[in-house]
Amino acid sequence: MTPSPLRFGLIGTGRIGQVHAASITADPDATLAWVADPFVEGATVLADRYGCRSTASSEELITSGEVDAILVASSTPTHVDLIAESVDAGLPVLCEKPIDLDIGRVDALRPKVASAGVPVALGFNRRFDPSFADARERVLRGEIGALEQLSIISRDPSAPPAAYLAVSGGIFRDMTIHDFDMARFFLPDIIEVSAVGTNTFDDGAREQGDFDTAVTVLRSASGAVVTVTNSRHCAFGYDQRIEAFGERGMISVENARTSLVSVSTATAVEAKPPYQRFFLERYAQAYAAELREFIKLARGEASTSPTFEDGRAALILADAAQRAATERITVPVDLS
Amino acid sequence: MTPSPLRFGLIGTGRIGQVHAASITADPDATLAWVADPFVEGATVLADRYGCRSTASSEELITSGEVDAILVASSTPTHVDLIAESVDAGLPVLCEKPIDLDIGRVDALRPKVASAGVPVALGFNRRFDPSFADARERVLRGEIGALEQLSIISRDPSAPPAAYLAVSGGIFRDMTIHDFDMARFFLPDIIEVSAVGTNTFDDGAREQGDFDTAVTVLRSASGAVVTVTNSRHCAFGYDQRIEAFGERGMISVENARTSLVSVSTATAVEAKPPYQRFFLERYAQAYAAELREFIKLARGEASTSPTFEDGRAALILADAAQRAATERITVPVDLS
Amino acid sequence: MTPSPLRFGLIGTGRIGQVHAASITADPDATLAWVADPFVEGATVLADRYGCRSTASSEELITSGEVDAILVASSTPTHVDLIAESVDAGLPVLCEKPIDLDIGRVDALRPKVASAGVPVALGFNRRFDPSFADARERVLRGEIGALEQLSIISRDPSAPPAAYLAVSGGIFRDMTIHDFDMARFFLPDIIEVSAVGTNTFDDGAREQGDFDTAVTVLRSASGAVVTVTNSRHCAFGYDQRIEAFGERGMISVENARTSLVSVSTATAVEAKPPYQRFFLERYAQAYAAELREFIKLARGEASTSPTFEDGRAALILADAAQRAATERITVPVDLS
Amino acid sequence: MTPSPLRFGLIGTGRIGQVHAASITADPDATLAWVADPFVEGATVLADRYGCRSTASSEELITSGEVDAILVASSTPTHVDLIAESVDAGLPVLCEKPIDLDIGRVDALRPKVASAGVPVALGFNRRFDPSFADARERVLRGEIGALEQLSIISRDPSAPPAAYLAVSGGIFRDMTIHDFDMARFFLPDIIEVSAVGTNTFDDGAREQGDFDTAVTVLRSASGAVVTVTNSRHCAFGYDQRIEAFGERGMISVENARTSLVSVSTATAVEAKPPYQRFFLERYAQAYAAELREFIKLARGEASTSPTFEDGRAALILADAAQRAATERITVPVDLS
Repeated sequence: MTPSPLRFGLIGTGRIGQVHAASITADPDATLAWVADPFVEGATVLADRYGCRSTASSEELITSGEVDAILVASSTPTHVDLIAESVDAGLPVLCEKPIDLDIGRVDALRPKVASAGVPVALGFNRRFDPSFADARERVLRGEIGALEQLSIISRDPSAPPAAYLAVSGGIFRDMTIHDFDMARFFLPDIIEVSAVGTNTFDDGAREQGDFDTAVTVLRSASGAVVTVTNSRHCAFGYDQRIEAFGERGMISVENARTSLVSVSTATAVEAKPPYQRFFLERYAQAYAAELREFIKLARGEASTSPTFEDGRAALILADAAQRAATERITVPVDLS
Repeated sequence: MTPSPLRFGLIGTGRIGQVHAASITADPDATLAWVADPFVEGATVLADRYGCRSTASSEELITSGEVDAILVASSTPTHVDLIAESVDAGLPVLCEKPIDLDIGRVDALRPKVASAGVPVALGFNRRFDPSFADARERVLRGEIGALEQLSIISRDPSAPPAAYLAVSGGIFRDMTIHDFDMARFFLPDIIEVSAVGTNTFDDGAREQGDFDTAVTVLRSASGAVVTVTNSRHCAFGYDQRIEAFGERGMISVENARTSLVSVSTATAVEAKPPYQRFFLERYAQAYAAELREFIKLARGEASTSPTFEDGRAALILADAAQRAATERITVPVDLS
Repeated sequence: MTPSPLRFGLIGTGRIGQVHAASITADPDATLAWVADPFVEGATVLADRYGCRSTASSEELITSGEVDAILVASSTPTHVDLIAESVDAGLPVLCEKPIDLDIGRVDALRPKVASAGVPVALGFNRRFDPSFADARERVLRGEIGALEQLSIISRDPSAPPAAYLAVSGGIFRDMTIHDFDMARFFLPDIIEVSAVGTNTFDDGAREQGDFDTAVTVLRSASGAVVTVTNSRHCAFGYDQRIEAFGERGMISVENARTSLVSVSTATAVEAKPPYQRFFLERYAQAYAAELREFIKLARGEASTSPTFEDGRAALILADAAQRAATERITVPVDLS
Repeated sequence: MTPSPLRFGLIGTGRIGQVHAASITADPDATLAWVADPFVEGATVLADRYGCRSTASSEELITSGEVDAILVASSTPTHVDLIAESVDAGLPVLCEKPIDLDIGRVDALRPKVASAGVPVALGFNRRFDPSFADARERVLRGEIGALEQLSIISRDPSAPPAAYLAVSGGIFRDMTIHDFDMARFFLPDIIEVSAVGTNTFDDGAREQGDFDTAVTVLRSASGAVVTVTNSRHCAFGYDQRIEAFGERGMISVENARTSLVSVSTATAVEAKPPYQRFFLERYAQAYAAELREFIKLARGEASTSPTFEDGRAALILADAAQRAATERITVPVDLS
């Protein structure tokens, strides 16, 4: 017997919440039952579009008895409480990254999640990108022998506004956190972090004591080294590349282009079109795949969803990188 | 006021019919109202999946009064009659290519289509591929100056079975016909055709007097020359490329790959993954875009849909190529 | 015992003669002994640069007894007589292509060459390009199975002056002749030629009844088809590509770039530098390798040098293409 | 009046000395007058090949009065004394990198070099690679705006033998030193160094306390960050790449391939041939260009040759990286 579609309660109806609403609606194994947002107009618009119920109160949604799973896409400071309430209500949760900017609050929540009878997944969407997933699968299969170096290049197309930066937790917790999880997708056992942060173009970041440019180096227990190169801007689009270098070769993931067209003229040959603009375009397939895996997880089937522990590990690495960049030391970490 | 979704009657529920059923269902401006197939089990399965009505009789569908437009995806010999019946019923039609294998039957239908009050569009899906469309748009804008040479490479991954070949009309009418339309997408005024057909690997084709390999050269009224390179098989996947060469440069469309991963080892560097397998994968976006344009056409809005005349022109070119390859002469054509 | 360096007599000191003078000087197995040119100032300059003797008389050079081999780099109409005189003097000859523009004169010379005790090689330099040679070697080894289609793209950076065109013999005999030989490098047994020539940009060519753009299709005895795409101009440089398509894959030779640099900006990503400008740059290695092979040939060692027969075959194909393009028919050829 | 060719005395006739001997002989502005090597058989062989004088004594060569310039290609521990002796003899010197493994000895030599009337150049050949030089030139011209990140990937094809490693000074002084100079080619004012070294495959390196894998991060006074990724082995050849990322785009230098051929099969498409094997092949043009610039320097003409100060700076960076990797701290440096 085919199971009924999973009834989702979506909390948070901003940009990323809308992406998830569309994924839920498109997935034959899911339905969007409720949306909640304290900014109730946003919730109403989404509810109208998809024909579901809306509320300003996440509590009403969680306790409605009409949802089977919670998707948390609200602002970061609300995540810890919403995870706790969902777990208390016996509902599986898929929560957007990060869990919180404060590792103390994350650790306080940890025992509840560990002893909960329901799974808590973290929204590290890049793990579900077909190309990154394929690259990692081939590394695990030993196609290039032992992994020795992993290079992650991750540049956003343009810097966020100062208001966003002010509550972001800084480049390592806000942006590099995705790359820390990608590093752990290939090499889970990171033991040491060093980092250099600089200010090259964004006065807004400088004024807030944040960096706009960063290089982070991670050492894994195996001896393999990960290099993460970040910039808050990139004139040629969303720069998202990986190179996994091993004893017998290298597996690379290149950028996604907006088309298959190239142009050759007197001054440049085989010039390609711009890369895909930003994460909504680049990771459209990944968001859908992430949801499918979470549905499996919620149903108790085998799933590759990253967990609360993965979310905690990424935050520990981000904290360590922040400290390494500020104090100019190498910081040992314990992710266990 | 938003118009109601267009109610489609789909005739033919084979592979390509199923693609269109999915496109219609996914498009917010369309609904699948009826499906018809003399093989009624196929129609029933599709009707069950999408919750619409089904019938073995295309006539019942066309005259039901419950559809606003017809999508013809049945076998080629039925196209002419179904177009005629649809037009008589005052229904816009999107018909899969080719109109027919016999130019006589096409010409006999031509006046009815010309004087009909409803549009008839042909399913030349490749015009709607975003990369081909972008390449052509840039050529029209003059980005490479006057177009001088157009090279179309079009190879299928593997040869069709002998039973298919027997009713296909031959490589030029069955396979190259897409490339003839692509040639006319860039250069509508073709005046001359020469062609070489050979048998290099497929004994089935040889036995039926068909070719498995062909090169066709078209001359346009402007003096520009089009080269079409075809093969019925291709070990590395579906080979679909275009190079538009002009006085100031070249615009190329390369193949679509299955992922962004490449591998470097001791024997090969930067080896890419296989190309997308075949037309359902390669032109998935194109089928959806084709439908959107047809909906505009059916509603009387501006549309880029290829017309009955485009379908007729492609068949004339195919006939000319067949003759050129057989008689080893250059064949003048008049597409007016 | 190492043989003494081969003493070369070079006839013709224009652009291509100077290339050969440099190659001869750089090769440890060759020395430049004499240069001849009726324009004696050119000969003198070259003789001064390389410390050899010069003369206005090719006869004096050939009969001097001080040269072991002749390199003919003078104007086309002189080739037949110079080959004959060299052969009569018992000297091996490396002659620039074409042998002559008139197949009658070539055929008249043929018996003398066939019965000569010395080898006559033709300067089809592209056979010695390391990448083309490697591609052909791999095709012969069966790396892609039976060869089914060969595509040769050959575009010059810019059209020659009208004065050059007037004595060139037309695009097929002057430019495509290299591609005909390249076709035969992969597929010697060509049996049929069709061709389309057009005028798209060069009024000088049109006034002389010549084409500036051409597509030639060759059929080989094996059923394989060769497509040659030519243009007399190309905004992005010297466009020299080959694709050999076989039952199990494809081997491609791409263009040579001027550097390894690429640039990514907001409007174009991974834009490459221009291709190498023209044949002197693109085929520098090939000219040196051609000379090395000729030295082996002159010494009676195994050599891959193209022969007089190859030069004759290329001219027959050029004549056939000229006729095919003019009369719009397919022309059978017999290269035996 | 054309100056006479510069008469070179070459000290050291091993692999790199032979490269320089060939470059000197090929350059019209240079002649090889003397070669010296305590292993006199090596010197004799080279002298025989090029028709010059040989000796076991570098002193005899330097004081012979028959050379105009010295090229030092002997083992590292001899460099300081040979530079000193050459300067004392009033002879310009081109010395292979590094000056020495001990910064104390370099600093002791520094005043003599500073007050010498003759130039001392360091053999950082990569500055003369046409692609790297072009990339840097374009960055300096502002083509990508302010430089923000520079990524240097530098992997050798295979690890050196243990005996070599034992006297190499470690990966940073032996291998990364080239990358430190390349970093300073783009960003001379480095102020801070951090580094991670690991052992992933080479037990020989581990036993000697050396690393086989390293990532070094440099901070420049401008705020720009340089990342150097090193490995002592690379299955797909000599991996030598640069990416210069700036506010308006990126300039990349990709690897040099051994040919223009690519192969597409059922399992991999557009697979390229291996990269060029090692530095002798990859930097052949660079060694010749390096010599030409040194000749200009020796003649008092404008020259881009890297200086003794550049050699000292690279060693300071290498020492700092060694310390950073060992003590796991960020090390400030003063290159003035």
